Amino acid sequence: MAKDSAAWLNLDRTGGDLEGQIYHAVRARILAGAIRPGDALPSTRGLAALLGVARSTVVAGYERLRAEGFLAGRPGSATRVAELPTGPRDGDAPAATPPRAAQDPERFMPFRPGLPDLDAFPVKAWSRCLTARARHLRWHDLGYGEAMGLAPLREAIVEHVARTRAVVADPAQVVILASTAAAIDLIARVSLRPGDAAWVEDPGYPTARSLLARAGARLVPVPVDDQGFDCAAAPPGTVPRLICVSPSHQYPTGVAMSLVRRIALLDFAARHDALIIEDDYDSEFHYAGRPLAALQGLGSGAQVAYIGTFSKVLAPGLRLAYAIVPQALLPKIEATIRQGGGSVAVHVQAAMADFIRDGYLAAHIRRMRKIYHARMEATAAMIETRWSAWLVPGARDGGLQLCTRLRDQTADDRALARMLHHHGLAPTALSTCAIAPTRPGLLFGIASATPERIAALDRALGKACPVDRF
Amino acid sequence: MAKDSAAWLNLDRTGGDLEGQIYHAVRARILAGAIRPGDALPSTRGLAALLGVARSTVVAGYERLRAEGFLAGRPGSATRVAELPTGPRDGDAPAATPPRAAQDPERFMPFRPGLPDLDAFPVKAWSRCLTARARHLRWHDLGYGEAMGLAPLREAIVEHVARTRAVVADPAQVVILASTAAAIDLIARVSLRPGDAAWVEDPGYPTARSLLARAGARLVPVPVDDQGFDCAAAPPGTVPRLICVSPSHQYPTGVAMSLVRRIALLDFAARHDALIIEDDYDSEFHYAGRPLAALQGLGSGAQVAYIGTFSKVLAPGLRLAYAIVPQALLPKIEATIRQGGGSVAVHVQAAMADFIRDGYLAAHIRRMRKIYHARMEATAAMIETRWSAWLVPGARDGGLQLCTRLRDQTADDRALARMLHHHGLAPTALSTCAIAPTRPGLLFGIASATPERIAALDRALGKACPVDRF
Repeated sequence: MAKDSAAWLNLDRTGGDLEGQIYHAVRARILAGAIRPGDALPSTRGLAALLGVARSTVVAGYERLRAEGFLAGRPGSATRVAELPTGPRDGDAPAATPPRAAQDPERFMPFRPGLPDLDAFPVKAWSRCLTARARHLRWHDLGYGEAMGLAPLREAIVEHVARTRAVVADPAQVVILASTAAAIDLIARVSLRPGDAAWVEDPGYPTARSLLARAGARLVPVPVDDQGFDCAAAPPGTVPRLICVSPSHQYPTGVAMSLVRRIALLDFAARHDALIIEDDYDSEFHYAGRPLAALQGLGSGAQVAYIGTFSKVLAPGLRLAYAIVPQALLPKIEATIRQGGGSVAVHVQAAMADFIRDGYLAAHIRRMRKIYHARMEATAAMIETRWSAWLVPGARDGGLQLCTRLRDQTADDRALARMLHHHGLAPTALSTCAIAPTRPGLLFGIASATPERIAALDRALGKACPVDRF
Repeated sequence: MAKDSAAWLNLDRTGGDLEGQIYHAVRARILAGAIRPGDALPSTRGLAALLGVARSTVVAGYERLRAEGFLAGRPGSATRVAELPTGPRDGDAPAATPPRAAQDPERFMPFRPGLPDLDAFPVKAWSRCLTARARHLRWHDLGYGEAMGLAPLREAIVEHVARTRAVVADPAQVVILASTAAAIDLIARVSLRPGDAAWVEDPGYPTARSLLARAGARLVPVPVDDQGFDCAAAPPGTVPRLICVSPSHQYPTGVAMSLVRRIALLDFAARHDALIIEDDYDSEFHYAGRPLAALQGLGSGAQVAYIGTFSKVLAPGLRLAYAIVPQALLPKIEATIRQGGGSVAVHVQAAMADFIRDGYLAAHIRRMRKIYHARMEATAAMIETRWSAWLVPGARDGGLQLCTRLRDQTADDRALARMLHHHGLAPTALSTCAIAPTRPGLLFGIASATPERIAALDRALGKACPVDRF
């Protein structure tokens, strides 16, 4: 790159953020093909002199480009434009696809539990819905609106969960929130007095536990076995105010609570006037037989606050979830929500209502269910075929995680998870989800488990496996 | 401008938003002095041909520059660079009025405090930003992302409040939240232990009070006079953990806290290790003289959690606000936020970052400041001319509300507000904002105070006025 060609780098010295301007200008040149893979960039010293800025500014701009994968070469040696992948993402993405470098290697690691396949996000359909709403923002989209949530979205959600999960509710019972965590927090805050007991699954969802504790609950762990959460296994004498469960696809074990236990739980809650929080985070994805209906629709609905989310079925970045609360809890919930104001941009809610009503959500679920099923099976099959003397896969008939247990009950699953982490893979150690000692194991997110990644997992397990024991 | 000199306009055709690129490039050239006031720009047709883009793209880019005052000349005639004021960019913004959106008669009532003029919402610019982001959703827009908020938005906010409010902060101190209420709630939850004292303005913002009380605070009302909140007026002996104030435009009285009191407050907070919550809800709109800088930037920043919002400056329906917290509070805030997850859709955050960076926010503020100023003056003038024997307007040098006091200190402002409500108008009775008895009065939202509505208010006051007393 000749010295004078830096004329394209017209810095706007009044605009601040010179580093960002350098970053944007170089990035634009790379994306436009004006600078090509392998081309050397000017030295930071040379470019700083040319532009009349501090060298540290240029270094910072280059660092950002390097961090995003646009530049190669270590600090110190010549900085060159990196080889960028040219292929489109997942079939339908046009040429405007941003470089894969946009994926933050810090964040995405295969087999991390809890993430859907974000590469399969229906960008076109969602942006169509959002764009249509953004272009025709109406007065009520811009005002404070209905703090509990936009009426059309609450209606669309009730229809969706009635159809897919047999939830029985009125739209007035729905609250729109930014996440499952926000829903648990809200319900805990309106239900608990300090020191009230809350029964939680063990092993279970650590975030739920810490939210309940923060709201003042005294946590009582209740063990989960292969039929799920069991009321009868709770320590005698405690009467809980809240019972927090994931009956359809227990986190992390993946087991479904048996019907007998469900009825016992509803009965117990009714007798003791306890509120059940049903965290139904990924039950849209069920692969074998008919999905068990939600606990909420099994009884009168008076004891269950049902929580659903778009984080697993679509993407966490949407920050969209919902709670469907018993009628009796509505006045308290409404008072709290009105105080804090609504929590989701109204036109995003309107777009999601359209997305559901127009059938995009159902179509996406159908499409992803097949893909996830295949990935679940492929991951489980690899582990069974290659590593069954060491690791035993558990339930695999639904959801985005595969729970596996180590045969060696004395093994250190956290050390194993750390080892796999070194190989770029991020399953969770089961012991991190447990209060009482639990059988060690690993929880694998399967949503992005492509054949190459499964092969990588196989290799990494090969390196991490204590071979001397086999 | 010779044809070939457009070489500096290197469009990044893969980056989308060509119009924005044209806008930025021309703006940068003007600010850098490379194109000077009076210089003719290429015709839209000529530039479009040169760049190989649609003419409408160039027209839209020029329109934006024209709306912000960078270009002069009407569409049709030659486009020239405008004479730019040399001082701070506070010039005029003759902008195209967006189509009047349909108003929801169910919700909208004139003179309700706290609402901006939603008919003036920049629908086109916002939907352009949002659409561009929705169409190019990237992996990190869809994942869990950064719970504290998207980095580019946090950076854009820091630049915005540094320029407009003299806030001194690092982007790492910014938390993106759905509302001012959510910000107060978060700060209260991480700062208060049950029973801690919190000083609140009296009269003051009722929502802040109830959020603090819910978080366990013992509320201590501190009277507000015509110099604002006064530390010295607090009951002796109470040492507050939190002090919640709106120093730049006190709610509801509209007074600005004097510099002497500001310094005293910062000093008091530092000596007693109290945290000040600075609710700076609508200070972007200041009409007379220079706006007082934020309290946050006046001291070291160590005692102040600054809260800003897009609800007043743009629209509440966006559900977007932010807190800028002291470094020392960051670990607790981050831990709490990470537990609950981020609260705003990531692509909405990205769109807002673009909206700020691309100059739309500044242009909107410039435009609305003039409109609101005129409406504030017109409302106050009508009341002074017609009803000054009964109602006395207070401070009117900024914000979206006009605070008026009834001369009759025994009058029932709630009854008066109810009467006006029957006539379709919705000012707030001041007594609803007060803990200790306060001089009665009415708080009028002026953002949508058109001449017809002011005339309607005049008529309604005529019917509500206790004529027998005059």
